[in-house]
Amino acid sequence: MDFIIHLLDLIGTAVFAITGALAAGRKRMDVFGVVVLGCVTAIGGGTLRDLILGSRPVFWIEDTMYLAIPVATAIGTFVVARSRRLPEIVILYADAVGLAVFTAIGFQKGFQVTNMYSIAIVMGMSTGVAGGIIRDVLSGEVPLIFHREIYASASLCGGVLLALLTHLQQPSLFAVSASIMTTLAIRVAALHWNLTLPRFLLEEDRIKATRNEQNAPEDVI
Amino acid sequence: MDFIIHLLDLIGTAVFAITGALAAGRKRMDVFGVVVLGCVTAIGGGTLRDLILGSRPVFWIEDTMYLAIPVATAIGTFVVARSRRLPEIVILYADAVGLAVFTAIGFQKGFQVTNMYSIAIVMGMSTGVAGGIIRDVLSGEVPLIFHREIYASASLCGGVLLALLTHLQQPSLFAVSASIMTTLAIRVAALHWNLTLPRFLLEEDRIKATRNEQNAPEDVI
Amino acid sequence: MDFIIHLLDLIGTAVFAITGALAAGRKRMDVFGVVVLGCVTAIGGGTLRDLILGSRPVFWIEDTMYLAIPVATAIGTFVVARSRRLPEIVILYADAVGLAVFTAIGFQKGFQVTNMYSIAIVMGMSTGVAGGIIRDVLSGEVPLIFHREIYASASLCGGVLLALLTHLQQPSLFAVSASIMTTLAIRVAALHWNLTLPRFLLEEDRIKATRNEQNAPEDVI
Repeated sequence: MDFIIHLLDLIGTAVFAITGALAAGRKRMDVFGVVVLGCVTAIGGGTLRDLILGSRPVFWIEDTMYLAIPVATAIGTFVVARSRRLPEIVILYADAVGLAVFTAIGFQKGFQVTNMYSIAIVMGMSTGVAGGIIRDVLSGEVPLIFHREIYASASLCGGVLLALLTHLQQPSLFAVSASIMTTLAIRVAALHWNLTLPRFLLEEDRIKATRNEQNAPEDVI
Repeated sequence: MDFIIHLLDLIGTAVFAITGALAAGRKRMDVFGVVVLGCVTAIGGGTLRDLILGSRPVFWIEDTMYLAIPVATAIGTFVVARSRRLPEIVILYADAVGLAVFTAIGFQKGFQVTNMYSIAIVMGMSTGVAGGIIRDVLSGEVPLIFHREIYASASLCGGVLLALLTHLQQPSLFAVSASIMTTLAIRVAALHWNLTLPRFLLEEDRIKATRNEQNAPEDVI
Repeated sequence: MDFIIHLLDLIGTAVFAITGALAAGRKRMDVFGVVVLGCVTAIGGGTLRDLILGSRPVFWIEDTMYLAIPVATAIGTFVVARSRRLPEIVILYADAVGLAVFTAIGFQKGFQVTNMYSIAIVMGMSTGVAGGIIRDVLSGEVPLIFHREIYASASLCGGVLLALLTHLQQPSLFAVSASIMTTLAIRVAALHWNLTLPRFLLEEDRIKATRNEQNAPEDVI
């Protein structure tokens, strides 16, 4: 089981690196930019977590596999994307696996260090989503997850469930698996049915929106 | 007195979270983006300070009130801003209180750890302004404080005064209060009279600007 | 020799601060923005390195010269750029010196702490390029080094050579000098002949590019 989680973790790292490399590609970056964006997407969330928790050394210094995999994956993406279109749907689903595993791992590391559920949940979310936020900032975009479909919320649900099961003293393997399944299910459902969260709506916009209700009703919640 | 500073600190945290939530609102982010931007604005400066100083754990792990308040405030802002316009002027003045208190608290933490005035002043400024810088970067803006009216300079003055009074061995309560008052007074004066700092002007622009002096004289310093 | 490297380090710090101040100038920031951008460009890379390595305190707290120099240089740039055009070519070459020295220093600090070549190379690159990346993000640009000519690659070569020479147990002075010379030579050659790395090219773009080959052949690698 530990082996499976470790394997999923490495797969998540690789997939996150691919999304980073593709973001760099959309901006026509050179191979160095592609590698940097691949790496920060893959290890940025965990690095932030380790810095805030003060776990020293950060995880990719302790185990350089976590550095080697994104470098290799990013270069591979750079090469492969020249000759063939990457199947976007596969990447989205693989990315959901990464999100789910990173959330559970981040939670456990956070809980181990602080013994606090709230901090552990925040650390799970940071591990899952911060890499993507840094990727978007570095490629000059407003981070996608701030106004896209349900992504961080899936991570939040996985974290809360893990907190609950840990509190109920369920065996760690069961708790982690259930958390991963939950995050994954919510994220996949969001992808499948294109679910979104309510948007921020200023009072003056709301009046305008109500007036235009026929034109863009899906924007008003 | 300590109680009053703690109270002002919590108020500052809440107000900074509101400015973050509103920035997210202007970009039509969803509720998750609103909470994240509220939190990074409120705790980003102090987190950077704690990371650089190496005070472990960071302050919002030690006292999760500093995490709970921005989360609650951001959600509250998200809800309230739908039905009523927030009074901008009140937020600006409350934000000035936050800046002043964060500066003094950051200075004291910096001085406690390093025993150096220069570092303490830098830590005071970081605590006061870095959250807003991160907020602006995450919402895709060039940070406001780099070309807006006097903001960080107010924090600098408060920090320098606090260094001076600490050096003169004034009682801590007096020094902190004087510093907070000074930062607040300068920031409020800047808001009231719309004061600005000199802008950077490249030599070639200066010539152009001199030619157009009648048209836009306020841009030439 | 140690003295020369320390001197080059200070020169590099000053030059990086100038590039930060000029970037702030292009965005018409005020004097505070100029100082902040000068400082983050000069010390941002080393700060990130120290945070990740967990070397406490960060270098500019230990030796405040590294804080005083960028502040003074940025203010100086602010003043001087009003009356005279700065010689861009001199800045570019001086910046190459900074890159080379920062790479070697970052490598050594990284190797000292972790005793791992791969991490030391990454730390050398971080020290050399991260300041410029933060500068570009804060001034609202997609980081230049992600799609400009050879810059980080020069740092990579200098780091790899330093790893090799360290592994071969060459004397430190010789290894560091050779590394600095190598980084510098590659960067200067890239500047001189305007060398670039291959760009990322999506498959669909490649087809388009091939069609338009007569029009823009230099874009296809």
